[in-house]
Amino acid sequence: MSGPRIRLGVAGLGRAFMLMLPTLARDPRVAMVAAADPRPEARARFESDFGARSYAEVEALCADPALDAVYVASPHQFHLAHVRAAAAAGKHVLVEKPMALSVADGLAMVEAAQAAGVHLVVGHSHSFDAPYRRAQEMIQAGEFGAVRMITALNFTDYLYRPRRPEELDTAQGGGAIFSQAPHQVEVARLLAGRPARSIRAVATVWDRARGTEGAYNALLDFGEGLSATLTYNGHGHFDTDEFQDWIGEMGTPRDAAAYGTARAALRGVAPGEEAALKERRAYGRGAGAEEARRAPPPPAYNHFGLVIASLERADLRPTPRGVMVYADDERRFEPLPPPDVPRAEVIDELHAAILGGVPPLHDGAWGLATAEICLALLESARTGAEVALRHQGAA
Amino acid sequence: MSGPRIRLGVAGLGRAFMLMLPTLARDPRVAMVAAADPRPEARARFESDFGARSYAEVEALCADPALDAVYVASPHQFHLAHVRAAAAAGKHVLVEKPMALSVADGLAMVEAAQAAGVHLVVGHSHSFDAPYRRAQEMIQAGEFGAVRMITALNFTDYLYRPRRPEELDTAQGGGAIFSQAPHQVEVARLLAGRPARSIRAVATVWDRARGTEGAYNALLDFGEGLSATLTYNGHGHFDTDEFQDWIGEMGTPRDAAAYGTARAALRGVAPGEEAALKERRAYGRGAGAEEARRAPPPPAYNHFGLVIASLERADLRPTPRGVMVYADDERRFEPLPPPDVPRAEVIDELHAAILGGVPPLHDGAWGLATAEICLALLESARTGAEVALRHQGAA
Ligand SMILES: NC(=O)c1ccc[n+]([C@@H]2O[C@H](COP(=O)([O-])OP(=O)(O)OC[C@H]3O[C@@H](n4cnc5c(N)ncnc54)[C@H](O)[C@@H]3O)[C@@H](O)[C@H]2O)c1
Ligand SMILES: NC(=O)c1ccc[n+]([C@@H]2O[C@H](COP(=O)([O-])OP(=O)(O)OC[C@H]3O[C@@H](n4cnc5c(N)ncnc54)[C@H](O)[C@@H]3O)[C@@H](O)[C@H]2O)c1
Repeated sequence: MSGPRIRLGVAGLGRAFMLMLPTLARDPRVAMVAAADPRPEARARFESDFGARSYAEVEALCADPALDAVYVASPHQFHLAHVRAAAAAGKHVLVEKPMALSVADGLAMVEAAQAAGVHLVVGHSHSFDAPYRRAQEMIQAGEFGAVRMITALNFTDYLYRPRRPEELDTAQGGGAIFSQAPHQVEVARLLAGRPARSIRAVATVWDRARGTEGAYNALLDFGEGLSATLTYNGHGHFDTDEFQDWIGEMGTPRDAAAYGTARAALRGVAPGEEAALKERRAYGRGAGAEEARRAPPPPAYNHFGLVIASLERADLRPTPRGVMVYADDERRFEPLPPPDVPRAEVIDELHAAILGGVPPLHDGAWGLATAEICLALLESARTGAEVALRHQGAA
Repeated sequence: MSGPRIRLGVAGLGRAFMLMLPTLARDPRVAMVAAADPRPEARARFESDFGARSYAEVEALCADPALDAVYVASPHQFHLAHVRAAAAAGKHVLVEKPMALSVADGLAMVEAAQAAGVHLVVGHSHSFDAPYRRAQEMIQAGEFGAVRMITALNFTDYLYRPRRPEELDTAQGGGAIFSQAPHQVEVARLLAGRPARSIRAVATVWDRARGTEGAYNALLDFGEGLSATLTYNGHGHFDTDEFQDWIGEMGTPRDAAAYGTARAALRGVAPGEEAALKERRAYGRGAGAEEARRAPPPPAYNHFGLVIASLERADLRPTPRGVMVYADDERRFEPLPPPDVPRAEVIDELHAAILGGVPPLHDGAWGLATAEICLALLESARTGAEVALRHQGAA
């Protein structure tokens, strides 16, 4: 490995960090320098996994002079404070989605980064995934005419994965609209290639025991006849991975014969024990960086369900391995080379921004636009009316 | 065969009649008595196929005293006149979808049937198909809780099938919204089980050479958190039959290797020759009742693409052979016995109404509600605003 590396600090060593661990442990462009988490076992594991420093407080992490950037992977409610702390300390920031739970918070993050002159990247969201980016390139190349319609459908068991209490309370950023819609919204925005104008959506709580929305239906209008339908159902029944050759969201094969496992696993958990169950799966208890380094490269890319971009002269269907092109006269598959490192696309963008000065696609304004759409989705579901969008950037 | 038969007259021996021919030629509950069509070769073939009478004018057909009912399968613009003629002559009516191109015309048909005391059945639409009806029964049985979301997706080559000029002019009832949306709207209404309240949709002309809408995106709101997304793309690229084991709309196997055939076939056709090409495929030129009688029963039911009804405790996915049930703890397939006669479901309803006095589900009010939704879909696409619905029956 040669060339400069991003010296990274991590704020929050939970599930999001676990999902980025295969990337962070294996991508040679990243040096893991420090982390902050209130959980001592996570800190201890981080120190031994990376020969790195750790802190109980994010503020101390941000003050670490050895860092170029901080990855904010703490629960939603801390994103603003942690982004501000990192920016104030002159660190670039990668903040997890959803960036913010209000437009005001998102704007405050953008301003903090601007004031400090640091890059703010929002992700990982599935709009980073190479197959969607490849489809976007094909759209921009213009060979197939204008994009006219985007269809996105994802059926998962999201609602029955173990959660912290806030994650089941919409008012605190819980539920499918804050946690899952950002992915689908960003894939649609990426493929649409221009600002959304309005959204009309329907979403309610179906399972009182979970207390938050696990599904939504939305029509996102980009104007001039371009629209996207975003359909999400996280209730653990039908699974759209059936349409993806049983490659799961993380790009790895799933057992097609397994069924209802998330709901079954949760059934045995006593009320009040669920957060502890989630924590047992968090970083510091089970597998760590060693396992991530040893694991074979994933056979396929991350994905977020069935996505079809309909253009005038083709439908493009990104899959975990490439893009199916259904053109006027031929149907062909454009494979992508299998990933070396999962989610390396995030490091591509972060590295190019921090070390190459390339403005990132998924910057603060991008994340703010997504946050606005998610908030508008909830508002439309509540009021039954369409919601106009105002923070989508220039047309 | 025992029991009384419906003595049927047919107004319009075109493509719709060809699609009903396997039903009408084979279902023992129907006696084909007479037909009307301006095309002499269609009349001649009808006479020899069924040993029946034929007329050049629908008015003469309706006056035939031997008929119980008239199947109105003429182009849209004649539906109102032909329904009125049949009703005025005291005949029950089966009218093709779309029933009407305006709410006023639909209301006039309902009134004509009421005044004459005859049944008015609107169809075939795919909401007759047994797998959707089975899913509806499962919903109504209540085992899986309330229905919350309906997802309907159909990608076909609709726009590139040979057409008459009117069929490519939206103002005359052409395009996917008048011809294809009724199917998807009715499947959604069937599964929703209650009146729709409003619709928000996007649809434009993508292919100027075809001049009419070949696709649409719509969010149909049934209130109280129940909604349907209706996505249709008839531009001959991706095909949702890929998700139906390559069973086509008519319940028969398709060649998965064939691609782009509709567009390719049309490419060689000179402007002005297209209607003639359609007519060459119409009844009277090629195969007729004899072929329909000899054909083996279809292996599967008719269908209209991917449909998923999401309930509180299951997703139901009607397929051409039955219903996939994705419940909380198990995933199972509920097969239906293969059809003896294709679209026999239409005769079930017509026979029960005319000879059993059972009010049909797909009556005039049903067809009017569908027509209103299709018109509202177009209006919403034009104005960019949501359209409230007023002819959906009692809640
Ligand atoms: N992009 C993705 O695929 C993805 C996946 C999961 C979560 N996320 C996002 O990541 C964020 C975290 O979610 P999660 O599922 O990892 O939650 P989690 O509960 O699994 O992890 C949160 C971690 O942050 C730590 N923490 C709590 N308070 C802290 C503080 N004040 N300072 C530093 N660390 C603190 C916790 O101890 C825990 O280790 C959320 O915003 C979520 O939306 C993104
Ligand atoms: N349910 C379905 O699956 C389905 C399929 C195709 C068509 N349709 C509907 O059926 C209707 C007819 O469409 P089509 O595709 O069969 O058209 P078509 O052009 O193939 O056939 C129309 C037939 O009506 C005849 N005709 C024309 N004017 C007439 C008149 N005044 N009186 C009697 N006959 C007349 C024509 O000669 C022709 O034989 C439309 O409303 C269409 O929406 C339904």
